Amino acid sequence: MPASPADSAIYRKLFSDDEVANLFTDSAEIRAMLLVEGALAQVQGAMGLIPPDAAAFIARAAREVQIDPSALAAETAQNGVPVPGFLAAFRKAAEAPQMMQYLHWGATSQDIMDTALALRLRPMLALWETRLSAVLARLADLADAHAALPMAARTYGQAATPTSFGAVVAGWGWPLLDARARLAPLRDDLLKVSLSGAAGTLSAMGDHGPAVRAALAVELGLSDPGHSWHSDRSAIGQLAAYASGIAGSLGKLSEDLFLMCQSGLCEISLGGAGGGSSTMPQKQNPVGPSVLVALARHVIGLSALVQGAAIHRQQRDGAAWFGEWLSLPQLCICTGRMLSLAQAILANISPHPDNMAKGLAAGYGLIHAEALSFTLAKQMPRPDAQAIVKDLCRQAEASGTDLVTLVAARFSQIDWHGELVASGLGQSPAEARTFANRVRADLI
Amino acid sequence: MPASPADSAIYRKLFSDDEVANLFTDSAEIRAMLLVEGALAQVQGAMGLIPPDAAAFIARAAREVQIDPSALAAETAQNGVPVPGFLAAFRKAAEAPQMMQYLHWGATSQDIMDTALALRLRPMLALWETRLSAVLARLADLADAHAALPMAARTYGQAATPTSFGAVVAGWGWPLLDARARLAPLRDDLLKVSLSGAAGTLSAMGDHGPAVRAALAVELGLSDPGHSWHSDRSAIGQLAAYASGIAGSLGKLSEDLFLMCQSGLCEISLGGAGGGSSTMPQKQNPVGPSVLVALARHVIGLSALVQGAAIHRQQRDGAAWFGEWLSLPQLCICTGRMLSLAQAILANISPHPDNMAKGLAAGYGLIHAEALSFTLAKQMPRPDAQAIVKDLCRQAEASGTDLVTLVAARFSQIDWHGELVASGLGQSPAEARTFANRVRADLI
Amino acid sequence: MPASPADSAIYRKLFSDDEVANLFTDSAEIRAMLLVEGALAQVQGAMGLIPPDAAAFIARAAREVQIDPSALAAETAQNGVPVPGFLAAFRKAAEAPQMMQYLHWGATSQDIMDTALALRLRPMLALWETRLSAVLARLADLADAHAALPMAARTYGQAATPTSFGAVVAGWGWPLLDARARLAPLRDDLLKVSLSGAAGTLSAMGDHGPAVRAALAVELGLSDPGHSWHSDRSAIGQLAAYASGIAGSLGKLSEDLFLMCQSGLCEISLGGAGGGSSTMPQKQNPVGPSVLVALARHVIGLSALVQGAAIHRQQRDGAAWFGEWLSLPQLCICTGRMLSLAQAILANISPHPDNMAKGLAAGYGLIHAEALSFTLAKQMPRPDAQAIVKDLCRQAEASGTDLVTLVAARFSQIDWHGELVASGLGQSPAEARTFANRVRADLI
Amino acid sequence: MPASPADSAIYRKLFSDDEVANLFTDSAEIRAMLLVEGALAQVQGAMGLIPPDAAAFIARAAREVQIDPSALAAETAQNGVPVPGFLAAFRKAAEAPQMMQYLHWGATSQDIMDTALALRLRPMLALWETRLSAVLARLADLADAHAALPMAARTYGQAATPTSFGAVVAGWGWPLLDARARLAPLRDDLLKVSLSGAAGTLSAMGDHGPAVRAALAVELGLSDPGHSWHSDRSAIGQLAAYASGIAGSLGKLSEDLFLMCQSGLCEISLGGAGGGSSTMPQKQNPVGPSVLVALARHVIGLSALVQGAAIHRQQRDGAAWFGEWLSLPQLCICTGRMLSLAQAILANISPHPDNMAKGLAAGYGLIHAEALSFTLAKQMPRPDAQAIVKDLCRQAEASGTDLVTLVAARFSQIDWHGELVASGLGQSPAEARTFANRVRADLI
Repeated sequence: MPASPADSAIYRKLFSDDEVANLFTDSAEIRAMLLVEGALAQVQGAMGLIPPDAAAFIARAAREVQIDPSALAAETAQNGVPVPGFLAAFRKAAEAPQMMQYLHWGATSQDIMDTALALRLRPMLALWETRLSAVLARLADLADAHAALPMAARTYGQAATPTSFGAVVAGWGWPLLDARARLAPLRDDLLKVSLSGAAGTLSAMGDHGPAVRAALAVELGLSDPGHSWHSDRSAIGQLAAYASGIAGSLGKLSEDLFLMCQSGLCEISLGGAGGGSSTMPQKQNPVGPSVLVALARHVIGLSALVQGAAIHRQQRDGAAWFGEWLSLPQLCICTGRMLSLAQAILANISPHPDNMAKGLAAGYGLIHAEALSFTLAKQMPRPDAQAIVKDLCRQAEASGTDLVTLVAARFSQIDWHGELVASGLGQSPAEARTFANRVRADLI
Repeated sequence: MPASPADSAIYRKLFSDDEVANLFTDSAEIRAMLLVEGALAQVQGAMGLIPPDAAAFIARAAREVQIDPSALAAETAQNGVPVPGFLAAFRKAAEAPQMMQYLHWGATSQDIMDTALALRLRPMLALWETRLSAVLARLADLADAHAALPMAARTYGQAATPTSFGAVVAGWGWPLLDARARLAPLRDDLLKVSLSGAAGTLSAMGDHGPAVRAALAVELGLSDPGHSWHSDRSAIGQLAAYASGIAGSLGKLSEDLFLMCQSGLCEISLGGAGGGSSTMPQKQNPVGPSVLVALARHVIGLSALVQGAAIHRQQRDGAAWFGEWLSLPQLCICTGRMLSLAQAILANISPHPDNMAKGLAAGYGLIHAEALSFTLAKQMPRPDAQAIVKDLCRQAEASGTDLVTLVAARFSQIDWHGELVASGLGQSPAEARTFANRVRADLI
Repeated sequence: MPASPADSAIYRKLFSDDEVANLFTDSAEIRAMLLVEGALAQVQGAMGLIPPDAAAFIARAAREVQIDPSALAAETAQNGVPVPGFLAAFRKAAEAPQMMQYLHWGATSQDIMDTALALRLRPMLALWETRLSAVLARLADLADAHAALPMAARTYGQAATPTSFGAVVAGWGWPLLDARARLAPLRDDLLKVSLSGAAGTLSAMGDHGPAVRAALAVELGLSDPGHSWHSDRSAIGQLAAYASGIAGSLGKLSEDLFLMCQSGLCEISLGGAGGGSSTMPQKQNPVGPSVLVALARHVIGLSALVQGAAIHRQQRDGAAWFGEWLSLPQLCICTGRMLSLAQAILANISPHPDNMAKGLAAGYGLIHAEALSFTLAKQMPRPDAQAIVKDLCRQAEASGTDLVTLVAARFSQIDWHGELVASGLGQSPAEARTFANRVRADLI
Repeated sequence: MPASPADSAIYRKLFSDDEVANLFTDSAEIRAMLLVEGALAQVQGAMGLIPPDAAAFIARAAREVQIDPSALAAETAQNGVPVPGFLAAFRKAAEAPQMMQYLHWGATSQDIMDTALALRLRPMLALWETRLSAVLARLADLADAHAALPMAARTYGQAATPTSFGAVVAGWGWPLLDARARLAPLRDDLLKVSLSGAAGTLSAMGDHGPAVRAALAVELGLSDPGHSWHSDRSAIGQLAAYASGIAGSLGKLSEDLFLMCQSGLCEISLGGAGGGSSTMPQKQNPVGPSVLVALARHVIGLSALVQGAAIHRQQRDGAAWFGEWLSLPQLCICTGRMLSLAQAILANISPHPDNMAKGLAAGYGLIHAEALSFTLAKQMPRPDAQAIVKDLCRQAEASGTDLVTLVAARFSQIDWHGELVASGLGQSPAEARTFANRVRADLI
């Protein structure tokens, strides 16, 4: 129960994601800001806006200088943004005031911070994509391998009709496959340079502003939005909504795992991913799926905070912007962890076909009721068929006899077992295989 | 303060949107469900799955029958879904049990409801697009007309540097232009048929299931997802996220209007859109912008609820699905209202150039401080220039003299007025015009 | 899927609560505003602030006049608040301008609306209390009747140790009993008059303001806060937080019911409260508990919106206040429905002792592992005892033999059955009975 | 933009609160868990449940042992809870297995963690109270000192009527004074021991369980709830709701400050609390109020997450409990920071009476419109008075003449200046003083 799991030795491995968290550390932020300032000077030097030797000096210093994060604390507490303190520390460390006067030429804090953020979101999105692909590949394998493994489909927690485990797995995977396809437009929206000066007009750069921005974008491998976006946080909002979508899909998957491995049902094994109890020796707790659900609900809540922070005011709004800072990094880290955790959980799961079969057989075969009523409806009006099946269901429950046995006794001319085997799984094996094939085609 | 503004004679015109709300009424829902059942029968008749005369009968009845919503109340309260009650009422009204036994053949409640929803989201998205285009067209006109109208850019509520009203308007518009472009993929995600039977396997239709679904999609003008999506609510989540994005952008626009028309600043007139007070005769309240902000925060909150409802369980989860029902319609209606209200507000606004000029002049011209420091930096080291400007700022405040006057006295060789006129607005006029042109090109 | 279930003939009985919804209709709002204006005039007449005959006329007219809500629509859309339109309609209907000029003397819209809200929250809180008491009484009966009925306690969905059904019921009830006790302070916070004039200073009433407010409070049976609270929405926030607490407690209860009645576990019967399927004749869906969970999550989301609307600005903030209007009524109605639905569900539930026993026996008796290890620890070091039990657990799973049988074979000198019967339920029967007694004592 | 500001050298002083954050560090958590285990052993030793020498040994070891948080990481990642790893590390460090076998006797992880949390919430609530009292004392001084300092009351951002700065301050303070009074019942709800064993029945302690719990409560200075509350998170929900209430009140205060110090209005000085810009030398940004608003919205969002985590399942639900862990510590730290920041901001603010006067005079004196209409209504029907004032308002705006001048010209028999001075501030000075007195009386 730390301030943030990312900073807790106890909880970090449970909730946090070192790879993503490393992109949001103090030092990563300082490195990214140095990179932006260095590239800005280089571009301005090449265009003759600042002296070439100053540009070269700043660019080199940006690569070499070491800035202690704690040196920024006092000024950040005063100014809200870390950039004034960062610039002071950078200038001091570089020890060449005549050169360093051209640092940050015509830019504003938000330009540096937003661009430095984009530089770190780039590797983050790459990490997400890798993990998403791994999750999808594993789901494809599971869907394929168990395409025709029968289990009870459940609606409202009640056994409804047969389905296959492969189809259930495919159901987890489809939205993730869509999400993977939506990474490209998200990347286009997010990975852009910000350069528009004190209040969005780039006035301090005279006529050269747009050209500087375009060149800076090229230098940093980002896109050039062509205008100011200081107070337009919609791309950040897209990122939060994207994370929220991943959270919904992985949260659903996790709830299913939680329900499947309940005592008394036990349709799935989590392998080594179950947790122990401090007092009950026999427990195998679905810790991973529970953590995933918790992260999913957390991410959805944080996403709403980020969306709310889009209600910026005027040309820059501290309240809204600071709100984004409080939510976005943990949203990113939690999403990274959701993906790595999903990967780890899925790597270890395996179905228990016997218990799945028990789930189908439980309840006196009532799960076949719908299929029976459709088969009967081939030879009598459907309402009559439904009424007969409803009646047989009642008999089955009252007498403890299997529904299929009862119906076979009454309509002996039909090969009930054959009918049910033939029709029971419906499209589920096909849907499982289609999913596996689509994933494999897309991931190439 | 009604249960929902959509149903309040008092508040409907303030908060609700009749055009969108009409898509979510009881009768609209029944009509859409009839349409789906009629099309399903027609398709199944054509494929020989049900008798052609029954198919024709059901399809005709679906167009002609009148179903009283209140007839569904008791069964809906019992079953959670209105479909069983709806089917009973439909069968009763059509009065031909031998034909009507083929109604709803192999489908499940959720197939009908989700497809009926898609049929209503189609005109809703068209309404949204029309309004979004109108808002954009008006913003383009404003941006163009006032591309070079100077006003104070404000950050943290403090006058920062000059900008132009046109650039401010363009800043409102860019994210909306992006949102308009994202309507197409959203439509592709949302407007799809659902047909997968009791628990997602379409088993009751034997091998014909996928072909029925494909034909039903064609019949209804929707797309065929190719698989079950009962428990995959990600497309609905995309819709909610989209609405949340619109809310952020229009909320920002409204907050700016609220701040611009404050007593004592009065940079903008809302025209007839201001509200009166029950006791203060002089008040012109920014009612419209305030309503828009309230709707925006409401939509963002509802969006999180819809995202949370994506955490479905198993093959259908009442708790999650019902949660979607409680949030989605009002989210859609509020979004519709945001767009129509934005249109109405923007139609009436006009800038007050005089008051904008006062905003620039206020504070002893300190708003020109940044521009002055960059101009001075052309002839001295930048830190020196900044120090001089900071010092002159202090003098200006202490003596009540305009900063430009002070600097002109000290550096008389520079044409300060010319410098400031030339450089003051920076890229703002160009950004305003670029936006106007982009909108006009895109809207054609 | 209507704008609001309260206004849907189809869904009203499922999601809405007519008794609470009736307090938030247009006509209820108008009636309450008339009551406030009538009482204000009466009080001001008695104090000589307005002519006594005008006061008497207004007070009588307030009781007799009929105002059509739709007559307020246009002015409400213009002004944001319905009061100016309401006053105009009231004056017109009363047809005595020389008397009616004293209507609304020195008050502002918000005074009337907030006081009229308090008048309606009073019966609402009474309804909530009645239902909460009924829920508690039923829980007390269940806890008492089944205080010693053994079932498996489950943590992380895994059978952990035995508990009793009565103790589970008591666990549902404790937070509701606390909530009932917190109704009194909530009532004190909420049920207060608002009277502070245009912008909180009551200036239009000269020195008489505080006395008028005090007398108005007495007249309406509300308390007098002694100061303005136009922009202090903390009491409304308390109401929302209260509803959120009820939602958490009833949501937990409902999730437990959902899990208990799953196919394959079936530890509880919902009686007539289960819903049917449009295609699966055998289903008994836990519709009620699913609706309750959906309402609970909805209320928690709405509560956050109401809390956010507490961030008012200055002396009145349309954006914040309107946001409250959009959320509060549905929060109140949903909470009312949660309570009535909980009452209806609980009235019909009954445990299935046989299936509970199966739940305890399932898993080869591993549920007794903790008790066994503590019993063994009486005669050997605890780590040894735990190691032995862990080993026996593994044997039980591998061999399919009951754990108690295995331990009895190894430690034959102990009466294992007696030990487990004696110690198995621990404090659960006592906690169940304590709860029942506390409820009965409190409800008298 | 770190994972959490509490762990960032750059941002900690801006957003975090070291005093509260220190209560949620790894080492604070370990210390608190040691304290609970030590006290449990002591109590069990005194009651003869475990050998007295083992009890004494454990209690002493709990005070002396050093446990490295990172030693718990692997087991926490596996088990979800840190307690098994903590116990292993404790046993290993204490090096006396025959004694340490009695550690954690009959308790479960959640008992230790929830009780250890209560031990840390106790000093946290004390910190909150101290800061709340300091904020209130400062507000009382401001309200008193400026009880009759006139300024414009604003509704919808529009000057409405005069009020006093003291009354505005009192308006900020009333809900905080109520909040302070609600600390006592909150403390009673929260500061309780948890001891109910593996699944809530305390079975491992035989008949002694309740007595052990009672004694443990006494030993730790907490209360004894008398029953299990593992899955009843309502007290935690109360804490979150409380924080949310503080957030609403301080958020409102901060928004007012933000608006008051806008360029062009400048009714208040933030003293040294304003922040600088990296490029604009003249800026004095209201950084503190902006941070406070950001924290307030963040806390409100986190509160909803904590409320949602109350929807626990069965006897322990990892998903819900972990969700609480992800939200609660940052909610507590942010609330602590809100209070310390409010204290720091308020210490430095001072009103600008001249600019307040300008705010009243702006708009041609239209702010006096309501008072004028009430004064005129003393000698003519109120509708006539309102019509005349509305007409004069229009004249004032059209001609640029002050409203009071115009009315004085038309109704020369009235001493308009005297009337307005007498009546203008209404109850505002009295309300300011009442608040100051109430605070002083309560804080003694």
